[in-house]
Amino acid sequence: MNRVEFRKKILAANDAEAAMLNEKFAATGTFVVDLVSSPGSGKTSLLEATALQLADSVRVGCVVGDIATELDAQRLRNAGLPAHQIVTGGACHLDARLVREGLETAGFGELDLLFIENVGNLVCPASYALGDDVKVALLSVAEGHDKPFKYPAIFARADVSLITKIDLLPHVDFDIAVAREQIRSLNPDAEILEISTRAGKGIDAWCRLLRTRSAAKAAVAPAP
Amino acid sequence: MNRVEFRKKILAANDAEAAMLNEKFAATGTFVVDLVSSPGSGKTSLLEATALQLADSVRVGCVVGDIATELDAQRLRNAGLPAHQIVTGGACHLDARLVREGLETAGFGELDLLFIENVGNLVCPASYALGDDVKVALLSVAEGHDKPFKYPAIFARADVSLITKIDLLPHVDFDIAVAREQIRSLNPDAEILEISTRAGKGIDAWCRLLRTRSAAKAAVAPAP
Repeated sequence: MNRVEFRKKILAANDAEAAMLNEKFAATGTFVVDLVSSPGSGKTSLLEATALQLADSVRVGCVVGDIATELDAQRLRNAGLPAHQIVTGGACHLDARLVREGLETAGFGELDLLFIENVGNLVCPASYALGDDVKVALLSVAEGHDKPFKYPAIFARADVSLITKIDLLPHVDFDIAVAREQIRSLNPDAEILEISTRAGKGIDAWCRLLRTRSAAKAAVAPAP
Repeated sequence: MNRVEFRKKILAANDAEAAMLNEKFAATGTFVVDLVSSPGSGKTSLLEATALQLADSVRVGCVVGDIATELDAQRLRNAGLPAHQIVTGGACHLDARLVREGLETAGFGELDLLFIENVGNLVCPASYALGDDVKVALLSVAEGHDKPFKYPAIFARADVSLITKIDLLPHVDFDIAVAREQIRSLNPDAEILEISTRAGKGIDAWCRLLRTRSAAKAAVAPAP
């Protein structure tokens, strides 16, 4: 078996496992968000801010993937979000099996909203379905506006793109119009929000989006 | 063959190809630097600034890996640095074969100093030898000081770590002492420099390091 065939086999096995997760989430009406970005684009900070707005009224849980350390799950628990760390031990992305096993261990009970915080990597997570309803790509303004075209698979697959750390705009060379244009040309239907967790900007719009989509999914779930 | 065995086979083939590259670089006394980091940590900007100081006196060339686009090679050529783009078409890291083929196509002639700008990814490039003398890891202060422990393989293997975009320090929560401590605990001999290409800080020290190490390698190369 050559490299391409081997990769196809791995992806097919993952797709099958992701489809099972997807069915399970459909049955419970759980809306599932896969957060993907470079290291340090602000995924964990965003979830901390999200927890403050949603955790009282929505049953939220979070599984967090990292190569090493339990730091992020600890941060999220400190913010009041039930969180389980998946340590991939070198693997550069989460896969559906890791998510299923993580959820079994976490034992969150029924959730309205599940966040999957992927490993910080703009490349590999693009190929792995996780049973999620939406992939959300974060791009911090410190990274540069040329990144969507340089990492097209992620931005093409993300239905929502968040331009983060916009409080840094006065200090970096980042053209929001160019970034938006690149994202839109990769995914014409992408919703694009501008966020600064540090300055508290854009969090309301982000939480509104989550409430709306999560309610829409719950509305079509079978009665318990 | 299972996943682990398949990966071992791929890495062994890469190591063999990298050893051949290494021999070739030893014969010509070419000092080879593999630059690795997250997307948007400032690899290309650093090379632009480096070109300004070195390109007149040192024979420099650069191969640049990206998933997509020729943007970075074009930027480097505009800065006066002979550069060749390797478009990986999805692959999340360079490997020794891609570097060899890239160099054959580029036809730089003999070089004193070759930069390999890897794909923006803090995970996968750690496993692939490229015939280089030194791996240099960049970490921008916008990414957070917790990243070395979260991506330990790269920082353990990098003999030089560059903390970049230090002009942003007043605007982000980044503790340089913590970052240095994490890097040192992963690699006690790592040289750590603080850099801002935007403010022109640290570039002199970086270029001195390159001149010294490159001269040391040339000194032990066989006479032409």
